[in-house]
Amino acid sequence: MTTIRIVFLGTSASVPQKNRFLSGLAMQIENGDVLLFDCGEGTQYQIMKYKVNFQKIVKIFLSHLHGDHIYGIFGLLSTMNLAERSNPLKIYGPPGTKMLLERFFGEKLENGFSYPIVILDTEEGFVCEDEGYQIVAKRTIHSVYTLSYAYIEKDRLGHFDIKKAKELNVKKGTKWQQLQKGKSVLSEENKVILPEMILGPKRRGFKIVIGSDGIYQEEDFVPFAMGADVLVLEATFSDINESKAKEKHHSTSRWSAIIARKAKAKKLYLTHISPRLDEEDNLEKQAQEEFPDAIIAYDGLEIHLNRKDLDKG
Amino acid sequence: MTTIRIVFLGTSASVPQKNRFLSGLAMQIENGDVLLFDCGEGTQYQIMKYKVNFQKIVKIFLSHLHGDHIYGIFGLLSTMNLAERSNPLKIYGPPGTKMLLERFFGEKLENGFSYPIVILDTEEGFVCEDEGYQIVAKRTIHSVYTLSYAYIEKDRLGHFDIKKAKELNVKKGTKWQQLQKGKSVLSEENKVILPEMILGPKRRGFKIVIGSDGIYQEEDFVPFAMGADVLVLEATFSDINESKAKEKHHSTSRWSAIIARKAKAKKLYLTHISPRLDEEDNLEKQAQEEFPDAIIAYDGLEIHLNRKDLDKG
Repeated sequence: MTTIRIVFLGTSASVPQKNRFLSGLAMQIENGDVLLFDCGEGTQYQIMKYKVNFQKIVKIFLSHLHGDHIYGIFGLLSTMNLAERSNPLKIYGPPGTKMLLERFFGEKLENGFSYPIVILDTEEGFVCEDEGYQIVAKRTIHSVYTLSYAYIEKDRLGHFDIKKAKELNVKKGTKWQQLQKGKSVLSEENKVILPEMILGPKRRGFKIVIGSDGIYQEEDFVPFAMGADVLVLEATFSDINESKAKEKHHSTSRWSAIIARKAKAKKLYLTHISPRLDEEDNLEKQAQEEFPDAIIAYDGLEIHLNRKDLDKG
Repeated sequence: MTTIRIVFLGTSASVPQKNRFLSGLAMQIENGDVLLFDCGEGTQYQIMKYKVNFQKIVKIFLSHLHGDHIYGIFGLLSTMNLAERSNPLKIYGPPGTKMLLERFFGEKLENGFSYPIVILDTEEGFVCEDEGYQIVAKRTIHSVYTLSYAYIEKDRLGHFDIKKAKELNVKKGTKWQQLQKGKSVLSEENKVILPEMILGPKRRGFKIVIGSDGIYQEEDFVPFAMGADVLVLEATFSDINESKAKEKHHSTSRWSAIIARKAKAKKLYLTHISPRLDEEDNLEKQAQEEFPDAIIAYDGLEIHLNRKDLDKG
């Protein structure tokens, strides 16, 4: 059973390629909500193609305001409107996001859509939280203000220990359920039973880090990405173009893999692939030299995370 | 040999469908130039998929400013820029086009692109001419100012009559070439020979009419489309939704077919197909009841026109 489903919607850098659309990634979380990271042109086509429920998108996180990461948002918002969506949509992005969308849609943004749109200009640090998770942002070194986002699940309560519950004489039924929700109850002897007396140690949740364009500064980014179950980073260049990467404020696949290794990530997915010929093989090879669990993402690639696997690990 | 190649890039109405992108049509003319009619989201992907040379696009004609017809222009212009295009691009569209693009790109539009962009707000009537053709526009009844465009080739000179040239004693070589270009020459007896004395009757060129959204008013639109070799019209609704078509200012496939019949078009291609289920078969059937040479267009459909066929007909 899938707890979290991640779908790469577009994995090309700057310009489209035959088999790669522009940047976009959808993450469907446990309650069915979809979080969308970036929205390059054609994102709504990919959402349809790869069977993501677009009306379940509750939050869109834009990394930066370059066209190849955002030109799909106009059509997506319009299509949601034509489909008579009613549930609110929140859009987070770097400073300037609100102005850009207000300038584009004009007054329509206020009350011309069938659903409320809330746009929140965001800086690095805490972005938002919801039941079960929070989103934190971190800047990268890029030509414009650019944010990477971390989806961090809150710790979950430990496993319910039936044996202990019986030992402490807690009546089965409602009281057990209360304890499982983290609430204290009274035992049959009217003693206060705290949940930590019955539940095992807290269990960590998933951490998924969606890195956007730019150079990831080790001292900042390694702690930000530390222990990520899924780490997505850019790989616009290969070793041979290191100087170009520096000049253009992009990463090589090797640099990203070094970050993954130092951050002890479980798995690295490289995206933002350039249309330059011949480089793709090198990208993967060079990354794997630093971090064997690295692969180049492609449009339609899906990652399925299972809560049970996390608890095992 | 193809003289004109027309490619349907997107044939869906309002929202994307699994196999239909949003509005766009490319026309490659005899000199290699490409004229693009509308530019819905994803047009640049379709241009790549269907092998249209996007750097050969010299003119873009926008029919109206609804998102499903224009949201691809931002990415297309940006990609041309990243590909370091240098040849100028002209964009024609209804009143408001210039303001929309200026507001979107800001100062960048003036000198931030690698190529000059000229934007011309256009009303119905003559739009522009170039070597060999002119473009004329006609309004339709729609919820916003909407233009259909006719590509009309200029008449070409008649066939060179070798027998007559010999009879009138015009020396073979340079003088024959001059006559073939429509210029007068002197015969061996120093008599003025006008081209019409040697050339057969003028030959008509192709006429291609790209109708956009709306209701086509017979009294206006039939003369506008008269004799079109290729007529492209919208078909958002079928018979059963006639009242909805009127209300929403769209056409049924039958209405469009009646226009085609009255305008004595050679062939009718119906586009702007709605995602409503089951209707597609009816659309084609109902159109063919009025005009047998009607078909429903699909993404990637190509029309190849050959000059020789025209001269035969």
